[in-house]
Amino acid sequence: MTTVKTDDKTIFERRESAARSYCRSFPIVFESASGAMMKGADGREYIDFLAGCSSLNYGHNDPDMKKALVDYITSDGVTHGLDMHTSAKAAFLEAFERIVLEPRGMDHRMMFMGPTGANAVEAALKLARKVTGRTNVVSFTNGFHGVTLGALAATGNGYHRGGAGLPLTGVTRMPFEGSMGKDIDTADFLNRMLAEPSSGIEPPAAIILETVQGEGGLNAASREWLRRIEQIARAHGALLIVDDIQAGCGRTGSFFSFEEMGITPDIITMAKSLSGFGLPLATLLVRPEYDIFGPAEHNGTFRGNNHAFVTARVALEKYWADEGFQESVRERAGFLGTRLREIAAHLPDARLKGRGMMQGIDVGSGALASDICSRCFKAGLIIETSGAHDEVVKILCPINIDKGTFARGLDILEEAVGEISRSASIAAE
Amino acid sequence: MTTVKTDDKTIFERRESAARSYCRSFPIVFESASGAMMKGADGREYIDFLAGCSSLNYGHNDPDMKKALVDYITSDGVTHGLDMHTSAKAAFLEAFERIVLEPRGMDHRMMFMGPTGANAVEAALKLARKVTGRTNVVSFTNGFHGVTLGALAATGNGYHRGGAGLPLTGVTRMPFEGSMGKDIDTADFLNRMLAEPSSGIEPPAAIILETVQGEGGLNAASREWLRRIEQIARAHGALLIVDDIQAGCGRTGSFFSFEEMGITPDIITMAKSLSGFGLPLATLLVRPEYDIFGPAEHNGTFRGNNHAFVTARVALEKYWADEGFQESVRERAGFLGTRLREIAAHLPDARLKGRGMMQGIDVGSGALASDICSRCFKAGLIIETSGAHDEVVKILCPINIDKGTFARGLDILEEAVGEISRSASIAAE
Amino acid sequence: MTTVKTDDKTIFERRESAARSYCRSFPIVFESASGAMMKGADGREYIDFLAGCSSLNYGHNDPDMKKALVDYITSDGVTHGLDMHTSAKAAFLEAFERIVLEPRGMDHRMMFMGPTGANAVEAALKLARKVTGRTNVVSFTNGFHGVTLGALAATGNGYHRGGAGLPLTGVTRMPFEGSMGKDIDTADFLNRMLAEPSSGIEPPAAIILETVQGEGGLNAASREWLRRIEQIARAHGALLIVDDIQAGCGRTGSFFSFEEMGITPDIITMAKSLSGFGLPLATLLVRPEYDIFGPAEHNGTFRGNNHAFVTARVALEKYWADEGFQESVRERAGFLGTRLREIAAHLPDARLKGRGMMQGIDVGSGALASDICSRCFKAGLIIETSGAHDEVVKILCPINIDKGTFARGLDILEEAVGEISRSASIAAE
Amino acid sequence: MTTVKTDDKTIFERRESAARSYCRSFPIVFESASGAMMKGADGREYIDFLAGCSSLNYGHNDPDMKKALVDYITSDGVTHGLDMHTSAKAAFLEAFERIVLEPRGMDHRMMFMGPTGANAVEAALKLARKVTGRTNVVSFTNGFHGVTLGALAATGNGYHRGGAGLPLTGVTRMPFEGSMGKDIDTADFLNRMLAEPSSGIEPPAAIILETVQGEGGLNAASREWLRRIEQIARAHGALLIVDDIQAGCGRTGSFFSFEEMGITPDIITMAKSLSGFGLPLATLLVRPEYDIFGPAEHNGTFRGNNHAFVTARVALEKYWADEGFQESVRERAGFLGTRLREIAAHLPDARLKGRGMMQGIDVGSGALASDICSRCFKAGLIIETSGAHDEVVKILCPINIDKGTFARGLDILEEAVGEISRSASIAAE
Repeated sequence: MTTVKTDDKTIFERRESAARSYCRSFPIVFESASGAMMKGADGREYIDFLAGCSSLNYGHNDPDMKKALVDYITSDGVTHGLDMHTSAKAAFLEAFERIVLEPRGMDHRMMFMGPTGANAVEAALKLARKVTGRTNVVSFTNGFHGVTLGALAATGNGYHRGGAGLPLTGVTRMPFEGSMGKDIDTADFLNRMLAEPSSGIEPPAAIILETVQGEGGLNAASREWLRRIEQIARAHGALLIVDDIQAGCGRTGSFFSFEEMGITPDIITMAKSLSGFGLPLATLLVRPEYDIFGPAEHNGTFRGNNHAFVTARVALEKYWADEGFQESVRERAGFLGTRLREIAAHLPDARLKGRGMMQGIDVGSGALASDICSRCFKAGLIIETSGAHDEVVKILCPINIDKGTFARGLDILEEAVGEISRSASIAAE
Repeated sequence: MTTVKTDDKTIFERRESAARSYCRSFPIVFESASGAMMKGADGREYIDFLAGCSSLNYGHNDPDMKKALVDYITSDGVTHGLDMHTSAKAAFLEAFERIVLEPRGMDHRMMFMGPTGANAVEAALKLARKVTGRTNVVSFTNGFHGVTLGALAATGNGYHRGGAGLPLTGVTRMPFEGSMGKDIDTADFLNRMLAEPSSGIEPPAAIILETVQGEGGLNAASREWLRRIEQIARAHGALLIVDDIQAGCGRTGSFFSFEEMGITPDIITMAKSLSGFGLPLATLLVRPEYDIFGPAEHNGTFRGNNHAFVTARVALEKYWADEGFQESVRERAGFLGTRLREIAAHLPDARLKGRGMMQGIDVGSGALASDICSRCFKAGLIIETSGAHDEVVKILCPINIDKGTFARGLDILEEAVGEISRSASIAAE
Repeated sequence: MTTVKTDDKTIFERRESAARSYCRSFPIVFESASGAMMKGADGREYIDFLAGCSSLNYGHNDPDMKKALVDYITSDGVTHGLDMHTSAKAAFLEAFERIVLEPRGMDHRMMFMGPTGANAVEAALKLARKVTGRTNVVSFTNGFHGVTLGALAATGNGYHRGGAGLPLTGVTRMPFEGSMGKDIDTADFLNRMLAEPSSGIEPPAAIILETVQGEGGLNAASREWLRRIEQIARAHGALLIVDDIQAGCGRTGSFFSFEEMGITPDIITMAKSLSGFGLPLATLLVRPEYDIFGPAEHNGTFRGNNHAFVTARVALEKYWADEGFQESVRERAGFLGTRLREIAAHLPDARLKGRGMMQGIDVGSGALASDICSRCFKAGLIIETSGAHDEVVKILCPINIDKGTFARGLDILEEAVGEISRSASIAAE
Repeated sequence: MTTVKTDDKTIFERRESAARSYCRSFPIVFESASGAMMKGADGREYIDFLAGCSSLNYGHNDPDMKKALVDYITSDGVTHGLDMHTSAKAAFLEAFERIVLEPRGMDHRMMFMGPTGANAVEAALKLARKVTGRTNVVSFTNGFHGVTLGALAATGNGYHRGGAGLPLTGVTRMPFEGSMGKDIDTADFLNRMLAEPSSGIEPPAAIILETVQGEGGLNAASREWLRRIEQIARAHGALLIVDDIQAGCGRTGSFFSFEEMGITPDIITMAKSLSGFGLPLATLLVRPEYDIFGPAEHNGTFRGNNHAFVTARVALEKYWADEGFQESVRERAGFLGTRLREIAAHLPDARLKGRGMMQGIDVGSGALASDICSRCFKAGLIIETSGAHDEVVKILCPINIDKGTFARGLDILEEAVGEISRSASIAAE
């Protein structure tokens, strides 16, 4: 069979849609990856502080997952994703129940509605509307929940919304914690708007939120705010949906991002790192009393990716069976915070953002953040921005990154920031 | 690591959502599969006439794809799906260009917008609306295009639509060919509705259709009708979108289902069998002049499933590099038609439906079709129904099924139909 | 107080919106009117075949209504329209019950929801949706129901719909009788679309229709078709709404346009000639079981125009207390049909349209129809076009027009048509 | 002709819709009215502090308007409302230009889109969307703009919104000045939400507001807030629409409610007291550059109520030709404020609301306000509540009410409040 010259990028220009994006920031062809490192077709290696946008929390090609997957394939395991019972799915469900749900006292059911985060959000919104008989959903400024039509209505980003081609309906936007400045208590604002019979806001089917807004700029909600939002949801008959697609699977230090926040969502969306291996897999956790879809009422071909079930089970058993992994993640998060504080000190108005292994620096402008990331890439570090103005340099490295690589990556970042700081100082003189 | 007793189905009842569906028709746990055969955890083997709902057109675990995938995994190939350049993606694009697009004179671009068919439909509708500045889309009775909010609006099935929880907007429904009886020329009807300035139908951004409606009951549109719909789309400034998710990848006998129909769609959605191996992968083919999304304007984490690119490339090179495979598919399709005609003869009002390797028998009622499928399953054949009333017994076996297995599967079907026919005759006496 | 020179039209150009319309066809300033005659500020008189677009079925300034109104005003009768009880309203309700409802065995309630037809349609649609808990409404091609957002969604005309500035939702468009040519049974089409569970048409809250489409081109539905539509509505749990705004109040020969059609709508909208005097007044007749709005749930300032109640009561008592008036209207309608047939004979492909005193000639093109109306106006006849292409010359004169004036008006029309016919013949030679 | 026993209310129960409302608060049949007095069929007289809900700012049956109207009717003036040129309309336009527009330097055009406020709001929103090509409109909590579908989307009241039967779309709700407590600067909040690219709020076509929210509880916006909203509208490319239906025509002390606020709206809606006589009449004032509807693109039968033009012209010439009337209104407003302050002093937490002749007392609960109004009615005073909880006793008497009647009405109110205050004191002891 034919091989392709893998460093030939003309095929992408010739045939791939202009909608392609990450490849514009990292304009080389990648060939392989392991742990926190990616290797280009030209042989060059890069430290990966993006990790498939948090879809590879355990790093690339974890050897145990790899082995289990190869074994599964070699033994002709079922591949397709229709929701037939398979042994791979049974094993995953059993592990998820035993390792995740039972220890946390959660009786949620798991719905497989397609392997992407957007599928999960779509199903969550449909379900909440069906459960309550209401149509309105409250979501927050800077929230990102996907770009299919139902999910896009809940997404704040104007650039993505502009792609809809239709007015987006069924969602009322409320200010996220801190988004309106320090003086405005956004939970109180939400509560007043829902309580006031002439506010013009329909009683919502659900309130959907991320505990840490990943795409929105690493805005981390406080425990107090989240608890008040949960109370407001309950008081107004709305379901609480936590979109844990980016912040879940250990990214903040616990399996769910909300574990230490004292809340229990009615519906939880999970995707990205759920498979542990970068494979498409998503699920919805739903309180049993709200699990009211009929058979196939929400359906799809790739609902249960069996390859992903195999690696996902290994991920659970390897990393989450005891407390050790979480402790190591928190330790890394502490280190990350310390280093970022030092790095931020090079820039006059830089602010730390985020929580756990989902932190970054708001450098004040998209141009500056982009410059930093470009310099990092040249120096061998894959790193990206987020935020409404792309003003946050965000660290999304594997949460089990080895400390040496972690430090080296942060060194590269510090060097890039330092260079810019120095040249700005010189320019100012 | 723990293993699960794979024939224990209680985990599914305990933890999987009530939305699960296929497992209700086939209530065993499957463990492995090869070619056209699936094997249960109890060791029993089944002939597969469902093939992952047409997501396994080349059968289960094709050895060449398997080998390539295992090699890729073993060599630490990139797994995540962000749209960075990878050698696996380059090789797939190159093969698709060389084997599919160039020989057919198609200059379409390929957009990766998420790995499911619904993602593809969502992106197609958004794009058509953005290109034209119009909001209305014409879709057809009995069409099935997915269940996320944008796609669901284009889907006809009332049960699925009922799950939306919101009025579905932006779509005008028109009758598919033949759906209103023989006297009504549905293309002419559509044309009049669009041409009449007081019809109340807004000029559409797109007309979206399946050439053979898979879920809708294997309704196969004629060449003449499709050409007229294309002309109507052009005349009214609408893009023509062919949803080839189920009917594409060889199912009807050619790579695209529309190849012999004399039409060239502006946008084509592909998913299901695109990876060739059952893995989640979808793409949108878009005429270059309509490829107007900005970078990441439509985005997603699992846009480019690299594992799926690996198997998809092998599928193209193995099956589509020359005409041989298509000829063998058409030969099987001829055999299928002949056998189905014989089988249908057992039932008084049965009608043949479909085209190519996407044929079935309308047995007149959902209860009867369901009875037939249940008997088949007991006899070792996985087979399902489709149609608005689930009244069509549909054959979606691998299109490269070996002839012995094919015949055995059809024998089981004939026996089931025969039994029912005989008991009905006895009852009638 | 200042007077204005009433033949000075510059004030309209200077200050009235470009949305003004009828004044463009009849570019003079009118000062007074009586019976079927209008008089310009220049003293010239015109026969009125438009009658306020059917809002003056009994002609201008009926002396009995005039007297009653002047008496009411002189005696300081309540003028404002809030829905307080007034003696004028009581008298109107009592007359409507006695003269209209009871003799027809109708137990409908009367809702006053604002004095315009669009208000009535808006309230009818809201009510039907509330009653059924459904959102979809079926309306027909070429239907006209007003231009406020809810009513506009039910209106077919593309030019009016284009003014919405928003996608219009909540309405499914179906073909009106005869609109798709002779071969298509549009009632059967509607029934199939509603009966088919995968048609993609939601079960409707209501079917709304005009028995004769006034603005849509004087399309008169048959008794059989209307009865089938009523049966279809009942069978599918939808309310039947007859919009009798233009065709009601005697225009077709009976008080309601549907009386001889063998149907009893659940909701009826009335406006235009309801006051009998051209004053704004509208009402909704609602079966008591569907009269479920709470107090002021639909409200408005001018719900009950007391001046209009005064004249409306006189109209009922004068014209509808016995059969005599209806007979005279039918006689005029017969005369009109005969004359129009003669007039149409001058034009090769002209077709008669309409029913009762709501007839016209489809002359085949908007340009020709416009030319005819312009010539008529120059000769002293106010007459307008209707239809999707403005291709129908429509006669909407007072239904009690005196026969001499009626004949003179029709003579002018015949002369205009004859002139055109002759010049076309000469041009053809 | 038959007469009806005008004190017989059974006809209303028998035949009028349950949606009727004001008659429930004032359960008698009114027969005539003059100035600030209404008289029942039983001969009893009432002071009118409701004035047709501000549609009779100049009182009932003003003798000059009455005379002009009777003369017009007697001389067979044109009655119907199609937008043909009439001398009555010309005279009104000329007077409006001369007395209202020119002295204020306003070059707005006047659109007649139907005689109700809701028609005006519907047309305003359609026009703003057409002008800008945007769909979103910003409206405010507690705003009331009518109950037809487009207007209802902009209305805040949950009870009215509940009647829609459809999700209401196209409007984003923002907090009105003061509605979120003293700490929240609602103009700043609006500005941030519009300025933030990821807020999820689409750029608006318009911002619509009432300077004093009549139905919403007499919330009077400050000059500073209004000026900032105007600046925000300009900065974000949105049109500013002032809905002056209730607050206009002198109610606040100047012809427009915004005159002393330092703003110039792009579009102004007027209705209610525009005719001066309680007759249905509405208009839209539109800056000429936004007057872009085509002929009849927004149309309707009763666009130009000629009877209302006659009385409206008299109202302008009689009351607005010089400054005298405004001064007398302001004097009354001062008196009203003084008296209301005294009356409010009887109740512990009562607060004064409103501005000009549109003031009231927030008594803290709907039950209390309702009790006050009932007692007043028994004592001969027609007065109503407003606010989200009906907690405001509102004074909307004629703005030219004679001082004796005014004082007597306020005495009745004070007596009612005093009674309640005393009985509460006794109960508390």
